Amino acid sequence: MINIYIHIHKIMEGVGIEEREQSLDQVSHVALDIGGTLIKVVYFSSSSNFSSDHKNIGSSADGIDAFSGKLNYRLSGRLHFLKFETSKICECVQFISSKLLRHYGDLDVENQANYKTKIKATGGGTFKFSELFKDELDIILDMVDEMSSLVAGANFLLKAVHHEAFTYMDGQKVYVQIDQEDLYPYLLVNIGSGVSMIKVESDSKFERVSGTSVGGGTFWGLGKLLTKCKSFDELIELSHRGNNRVIDMLVGDIYGGMDYSKIGLTSTAIASSFGKAISKKKELEDYRAEDVARSLLRMISNNIGQIAYLNALRFGLKRIFFGGFFIRGHAYTMDTISVAVHYWSKGEAKALFLCHEGFLGALGSFLSYKGNGFVEVTHGSTEQNSSSQNNLVCTGDGIESSADDCVKHYGCIECKLEKRTENLRFLSKGY
Amino acid sequence: MINIYIHIHKIMEGVGIEEREQSLDQVSHVALDIGGTLIKVVYFSSSSNFSSDHKNIGSSADGIDAFSGKLNYRLSGRLHFLKFETSKICECVQFISSKLLRHYGDLDVENQANYKTKIKATGGGTFKFSELFKDELDIILDMVDEMSSLVAGANFLLKAVHHEAFTYMDGQKVYVQIDQEDLYPYLLVNIGSGVSMIKVESDSKFERVSGTSVGGGTFWGLGKLLTKCKSFDELIELSHRGNNRVIDMLVGDIYGGMDYSKIGLTSTAIASSFGKAISKKKELEDYRAEDVARSLLRMISNNIGQIAYLNALRFGLKRIFFGGFFIRGHAYTMDTISVAVHYWSKGEAKALFLCHEGFLGALGSFLSYKGNGFVEVTHGSTEQNSSSQNNLVCTGDGIESSADDCVKHYGCIECKLEKRTENLRFLSKGY
Repeated sequence: MINIYIHIHKIMEGVGIEEREQSLDQVSHVALDIGGTLIKVVYFSSSSNFSSDHKNIGSSADGIDAFSGKLNYRLSGRLHFLKFETSKICECVQFISSKLLRHYGDLDVENQANYKTKIKATGGGTFKFSELFKDELDIILDMVDEMSSLVAGANFLLKAVHHEAFTYMDGQKVYVQIDQEDLYPYLLVNIGSGVSMIKVESDSKFERVSGTSVGGGTFWGLGKLLTKCKSFDELIELSHRGNNRVIDMLVGDIYGGMDYSKIGLTSTAIASSFGKAISKKKELEDYRAEDVARSLLRMISNNIGQIAYLNALRFGLKRIFFGGFFIRGHAYTMDTISVAVHYWSKGEAKALFLCHEGFLGALGSFLSYKGNGFVEVTHGSTEQNSSSQNNLVCTGDGIESSADDCVKHYGCIECKLEKRTENLRFLSKGY
Repeated sequence: MINIYIHIHKIMEGVGIEEREQSLDQVSHVALDIGGTLIKVVYFSSSSNFSSDHKNIGSSADGIDAFSGKLNYRLSGRLHFLKFETSKICECVQFISSKLLRHYGDLDVENQANYKTKIKATGGGTFKFSELFKDELDIILDMVDEMSSLVAGANFLLKAVHHEAFTYMDGQKVYVQIDQEDLYPYLLVNIGSGVSMIKVESDSKFERVSGTSVGGGTFWGLGKLLTKCKSFDELIELSHRGNNRVIDMLVGDIYGGMDYSKIGLTSTAIASSFGKAISKKKELEDYRAEDVARSLLRMISNNIGQIAYLNALRFGLKRIFFGGFFIRGHAYTMDTISVAVHYWSKGEAKALFLCHEGFLGALGSFLSYKGNGFVEVTHGSTEQNSSSQNNLVCTGDGIESSADDCVKHYGCIECKLEKRTENLRFLSKGY
């Protein structure tokens, strides 16, 4: 899912926009989401065509005085999505240094001596690694609130990208078209190392209402201890081939193959996750890693689905969107979460997933450039052509996954960005 | 907690009860709760004094026509509480055979040829092992609904035993006196291999509203795989000495030692259970078993506390009683559950624990003899003298924990039972 290559051709509102093409090699603006386990990177690179608008376009929504005749650039290009493991922070710094920042200077010529690059960053690691970025790259990490970023990223995707949200059950992926007028309220469940659950009521009103420490870090941490897998993705892949019934104690195992129908428990329902592992006859080595991984994935996915539903119920939220890098488009994970939400809500609530699930925070962080100047991604009406790709999409930067798996590319979105000269000046002054 | 030796001296309501002592060696009535991991046994043995009432006592609440002059026996004795591991079902059968059943015949002399012993039993294993009991002992397991048993057991304890319920926080155990008129509604959370959450609204009205597969079986199963512990109790003991911060990823680990105070997360809050175990530098062998056990206990206790609170909130239940054999009076388990309930409810709800936490189902099963005849434990006003004991209380049967740990005694309650001759006759006819 996350590898889908989405083209967004922005349709600008307003009339008579004059476009003039200008050649420019590449402009790259980067935003980070530094989590406990992963660093997610969103950056923009322009294509060879560079268009600028120089026209009165009336008072725009964000209060820019259009009559001042400021120069607006509209850049065609791509939003790129990448991830690093947080333990590979140095590689991340190097990547940003070598690939992205060499272009900043091209545009920001005024007062070069005072120039300080600020990068929008969210996630708890921003605090932890700010010194590193300062020392290595002379970059200031400009902290964006984590919950705000997640919400901004989710809202943008749900409004701007046609095929972003979908349901997944019994192997069937069904895209859901969200009516923008009927988007709120919803519950956003972001499954990173831990899990945050946020009630979103409008573009700007939201609250973290719950969460759980049993999240992606638990899956990967426990999974690594139990299976000796070398990566999260390997563990996920293993789980795909496993059978949880070997290790989980099912209702039928207790009830001699029977249901406990009076309270709605079928014989195949899990009564106790890892409950069969109490057997004195078997040690860890006697279980297949596949089966262990499967039980673990099911336990955690089911638990998150249940807690999410209970919170949605609590606040009367019919839609639950699941994001975060735990899911990674993995069928069984989504299926289990969907079944959990369906089961506990007795079919009343539905789990919805997002194509760009893992990048909500980084994208929200990127979008926050708007407020402080620099970049705006308007996301009114959009058209979209999508083409699924099974493999990761490599960008034109020629960067591919390195041998030690420290960076992975998760496709990109083609879009146009609007840049305002005033804001550029702000940046060049070190704001 | 579970080892407290409680004497209940029943005060009969009504006046002029004539008691007549009668010598009897021992009368033993047994009830079982056969779970996925453990078998809990409650049985009654009379002391040497046997008193009978033979008197018109007015119409009693359960509709017995007192004017028919039926003979009521009141037996002084003890309710005993024991557990076996379910894997040791044969030892359990043997135990029942050798110690308990030899006395049945003493009383049930009528129609001996047709005599079939029925034992009340609850828990899913009743289905699974009914053949075994039939073949080995010619005993019919008379199935009692699991949820009904749990509720009946809890209601009895909360009404009949003065020092049964308590809160536990920061190492402080505080007994809570429950006003019988203000007992309902409450949430009963029974933590066995899996977890059941039951909304209890009256003596007879209740509903299993939720549950989770992440329970005692998960703790023991995962714990066994991770630590190679030989028993649940050893694992609990290990966890007592551990430090979860070695393996759990705390908010401070992500936020560079800082809180995320905006959303109420302190630096010491667990962001991701087992989140630090993703480290490439360490394998399972590099962690101390104590720390692993501690993280596991905290993850599971916290999760149960959270889901319990969400369900209590959903149904407007202020009191949450936690029972089941997972807790075993273990301080850290109770503390974690208490903190979870306190944290998520912002201090609105309280976790309450039960001294006889592990025997709710077996006790409820025992009490169900009332309906089908045989035994009634009236539990009106009671007096109680309690004396705490640190060690398990061995009964007068001279049975102690065997070398392979297949049976453990968890003290007893002194009480008086009422037997009605009419009901005895029913039993003797094989009903």
